[in-house]
Amino acid sequence: MPSKYTAPHIANKVRKLRKASIDVTLVFNKLIAGDKTALAQAITLIESTRESDFQLAENLVNQCLTIPSKGIRIGITGVPGVGKSTFIEALGGFLTAMGKKVAVLAVDPSSSFTKGSILGDKTRMETLAKDPNAFIRPSPASDALGGVTRKTRETLILCEAAAFDVVLVETVGVGQSETAVHSMVDFFLLLKLAGAGDELQGIKRGIMEMADAIVINKADGSNLNQVKIARGEFKRALHLYPPKENQWTPTVLSCSALHNLGIEAVWETISHFMTMTKANGHFAKNRTNQNKNWFLQSVDALLKHQFYANSQTKDRLKQLLNQVETNQISPYAAAKALVQK
Amino acid sequence: MPSKYTAPHIANKVRKLRKASIDVTLVFNKLIAGDKTALAQAITLIESTRESDFQLAENLVNQCLTIPSKGIRIGITGVPGVGKSTFIEALGGFLTAMGKKVAVLAVDPSSSFTKGSILGDKTRMETLAKDPNAFIRPSPASDALGGVTRKTRETLILCEAAAFDVVLVETVGVGQSETAVHSMVDFFLLLKLAGAGDELQGIKRGIMEMADAIVINKADGSNLNQVKIARGEFKRALHLYPPKENQWTPTVLSCSALHNLGIEAVWETISHFMTMTKANGHFAKNRTNQNKNWFLQSVDALLKHQFYANSQTKDRLKQLLNQVETNQISPYAAAKALVQK
Repeated sequence: MPSKYTAPHIANKVRKLRKASIDVTLVFNKLIAGDKTALAQAITLIESTRESDFQLAENLVNQCLTIPSKGIRIGITGVPGVGKSTFIEALGGFLTAMGKKVAVLAVDPSSSFTKGSILGDKTRMETLAKDPNAFIRPSPASDALGGVTRKTRETLILCEAAAFDVVLVETVGVGQSETAVHSMVDFFLLLKLAGAGDELQGIKRGIMEMADAIVINKADGSNLNQVKIARGEFKRALHLYPPKENQWTPTVLSCSALHNLGIEAVWETISHFMTMTKANGHFAKNRTNQNKNWFLQSVDALLKHQFYANSQTKDRLKQLLNQVETNQISPYAAAKALVQK
Repeated sequence: MPSKYTAPHIANKVRKLRKASIDVTLVFNKLIAGDKTALAQAITLIESTRESDFQLAENLVNQCLTIPSKGIRIGITGVPGVGKSTFIEALGGFLTAMGKKVAVLAVDPSSSFTKGSILGDKTRMETLAKDPNAFIRPSPASDALGGVTRKTRETLILCEAAAFDVVLVETVGVGQSETAVHSMVDFFLLLKLAGAGDELQGIKRGIMEMADAIVINKADGSNLNQVKIARGEFKRALHLYPPKENQWTPTVLSCSALHNLGIEAVWETISHFMTMTKANGHFAKNRTNQNKNWFLQSVDALLKHQFYANSQTKDRLKQLLNQVETNQISPYAAAKALVQK
């Protein structure tokens, strides 16, 4: 009888044996025909941590890249409690009712513990989850934002190859995940509440600068007057920024996601943005720049990863950090000593 | 007769022969005795681009690190025209009159063309330049902010070893140089003008968040009413930020550097900051953190430098960038291909 210590190990082995090698071409063909099961399978491959899956995942992504992307990528952020899920459910439902296919992804490194914030709470996005034209995928589990970001970027490519018209990428309004999402979407939407006392918080954190639209949610009932005041404040705040290179002027809107009010106006704004930036070339330019940046950032990340993975480097790093702390060596000289070893 | 093409080459050779190998111990001993000529010589060694000088410079900096730093490092920033030079001249003169030794350095990568903004314009800081207790050094010439930053950091260490009580590090209020200066000083001072219409510009650029004090310059004559309004606005803006870990509350002051008004209050604020952060341990903690960050940043920079220095890597990079642009390969796969070559 296996001890409780060997059991997980054996279970893992069995799981590995069971998981037959995936036929990438088959998955790809099903995926581009719009098969949601194949899409889910493909994403699982991308999220896999098995060495043997890496090359398969890479092949699949490279194949998907050959399919011209026709969709739009929309990032949605806002602090917890702002109503992101309700908003996505409302916008997603509005779009599927128009006949569009909508995918919802998430970048939320903190959710690796709950294995995905989107589906962590089963009551969230209940209607959209059942919609045949919608596809919802929780945040991939990863111990670092970089890992989550990469997997989400690649998932996005798969969704577009699977002919999804709109990909909504949700992120929680804390930390660096917003910058990560901004770097992979065409349109960045900041959800806000009126009277939350944080009207200007977004400025100092640089979030407002990234926003193409600010949407004040929960604009209903007794809240309407506060919403009006907040709209004015956000508009003034947006004036602090110089005009964007793409010539788009960020707008302030309000909606009540819970009551499905104002959702159409949000979509009109996004459509207008699309038309304008596609006409002036900035839509394509932005995507090319994002890809180039993603490439260069990945090079940096891989270089660092490779460098610090060495156990000798780790030991030497500790020693040198200690010498730096006690002023025995200049930080630059220490860095040279570490790199040139 | 040498052609005009060989002349610079020969001139260089002659210069190299003339420049006798420097005696680091001798320079160090003179430097810690407060000899300004030795200090200037030491800084030139740090700024040297000759391979043979690198090790000497490193030895010198490491020796200087053994001298406990008793000085304070003050970063001063502000947009062109705000009166930085006049302010530094006024504050510097105030401090030397108190018997303090003051060094003025600059981080301004753009000034590498003019070989130093500080002395580029000979009329700037005329009085301070002649003061026996002052030492002024222009921004080191370098083609990258990283190079300027490293050299300025090391120069700072030399100045402190040479018993300078106050080191003022000036930077022009554009780009990343402010973050660089902030990362090497104890106190960060933001110079502003009243009624310049840029009251809130500092917020969005993240500069205001770094400021320990905002000083509104040119508070004289008919400008006084506007200064009063601006003080209120800056105070409100500072309230947007959460309390600092070091428990310091950034203050808003005004002065007329030209008329030597309000300079004493600026120094009182800085002294108060010093007393407080030395008492609560954050002064030392900040310096240690700065050194650790400098070390880790240098490791990253050197890794990248080493990696991209290879001409094969450069060629492969171009190829891969092109493939990324034309969607032939996923940016991540391209990065892996480059790093694993």
